[in-house]
Amino acid sequence: MSRLTIWGVEGIKEISPQDQLGEIIAEACRNEPNGPLVENDILVVTQKIVSKAEGRLVPIDAADPLSHKQLVEQEAVRIVRRRGDLIITETRHGFICANSGVDLSNIEKGYAALLPIDSDKSARRIRDIIRARNGVTVGVIISDTFGRPWRNGLTDVAIGIAGVAGVVDLRGTPDSLGRIMQVTEVAVADELASAAELVMGKSSGIPVAVVRGADKDWFRDSKISELVRPAQEDLFR
Amino acid sequence: MSRLTIWGVEGIKEISPQDQLGEIIAEACRNEPNGPLVENDILVVTQKIVSKAEGRLVPIDAADPLSHKQLVEQEAVRIVRRRGDLIITETRHGFICANSGVDLSNIEKGYAALLPIDSDKSARRIRDIIRARNGVTVGVIISDTFGRPWRNGLTDVAIGIAGVAGVVDLRGTPDSLGRIMQVTEVAVADELASAAELVMGKSSGIPVAVVRGADKDWFRDSKISELVRPAQEDLFR
Repeated sequence: MSRLTIWGVEGIKEISPQDQLGEIIAEACRNEPNGPLVENDILVVTQKIVSKAEGRLVPIDAADPLSHKQLVEQEAVRIVRRRGDLIITETRHGFICANSGVDLSNIEKGYAALLPIDSDKSARRIRDIIRARNGVTVGVIISDTFGRPWRNGLTDVAIGIAGVAGVVDLRGTPDSLGRIMQVTEVAVADELASAAELVMGKSSGIPVAVVRGADKDWFRDSKISELVRPAQEDLFR
Repeated sequence: MSRLTIWGVEGIKEISPQDQLGEIIAEACRNEPNGPLVENDILVVTQKIVSKAEGRLVPIDAADPLSHKQLVEQEAVRIVRRRGDLIITETRHGFICANSGVDLSNIEKGYAALLPIDSDKSARRIRDIIRARNGVTVGVIISDTFGRPWRNGLTDVAIGIAGVAGVVDLRGTPDSLGRIMQVTEVAVADELASAAELVMGKSSGIPVAVVRGADKDWFRDSKISELVRPAQEDLFR
């Protein structure tokens, strides 16, 4: 029987540039009241601490809206929509999101945080350090908080993955009546990021969560590009 | 410390029209190997069994694509996009999804399942029966599997809610550096639906999941319209 448990990792301090994020997470996980990590746990790590550790902070004049706007445009490969102050862009990674993912909240005043340059690499680095220090192989998801069309509210999605599937393809699997299903590609990495957000919240200072009990079939080599729909297949740009 | 546990409810048989779905779920939860429901558990129930129990099944000629297409158009208030066989529509509820939510998988051959007419009411009915039979007040989410623009793969979202927030508003809450946050409205009902999907899968025959450990602040009167962005605020229709 499938059963998931999800909790926030305690004891991770405010992250600064040059911090060895993987080492900090590895140590926090060793000292967790919930006990050590086990094989096939999934670590969900918020983009913000990854960006901070990787020094993706740029000075910004918070009093000048133009300063933020220029940064957003500089980080975009394409403007998808614009209305008033709201800018929806496509990033170099292929993500479509507000403000190119440029973030001002939970950042030291006078700075903005940019998305990691290669968020799969950020995830792999954490995974490698956990393997070396904690002796277990885990999946790692870097998560960020995105809006979406048509529905109110934000949800967390995956922006970088290592060792865990982005999309699980159930095409051809018989449904519960024994017939072949049409198409069911489940975006498990996004669902895992959303599930983890529920224990992290926005202001709780918990930037890493553990998901235990994930399906063994989801653990494999992976790239975030699995989750990015090619422009020519997309009906909404 | 926040900690969520999520599992699928065992022992729910194939549902047919006229089945008393609330009673069936209430009984399955009483006999669960994980023990009885407790106050503030959240039940996530897939749309398909709700539609079946409510008799939202219509005959369809599976060999004739036109038969499906007519049904999709009849269930739509507006066609949002169309390319080849793919039709994205707006439903009476305000949901924007493929095929007006008309579903052929896991349905008896020759039939299609339509969305519940009033999915909040479906959720409330289940919640009331659980309160009467199991003696606990739970939140109920009716979930369905939707695609989204820009990203590959489907995720589960909420299409009906009772007693649990759709969107939790963190606007004005200080961030972890003590400053006031800009805007963070989290779509917790969608994140809960996605989390539950991870233990239900598509072909596993587990149509109900329990989420235990949700934030007490999320339990309140609610309507799915919280999650539907008004057309005039939407940039993508």
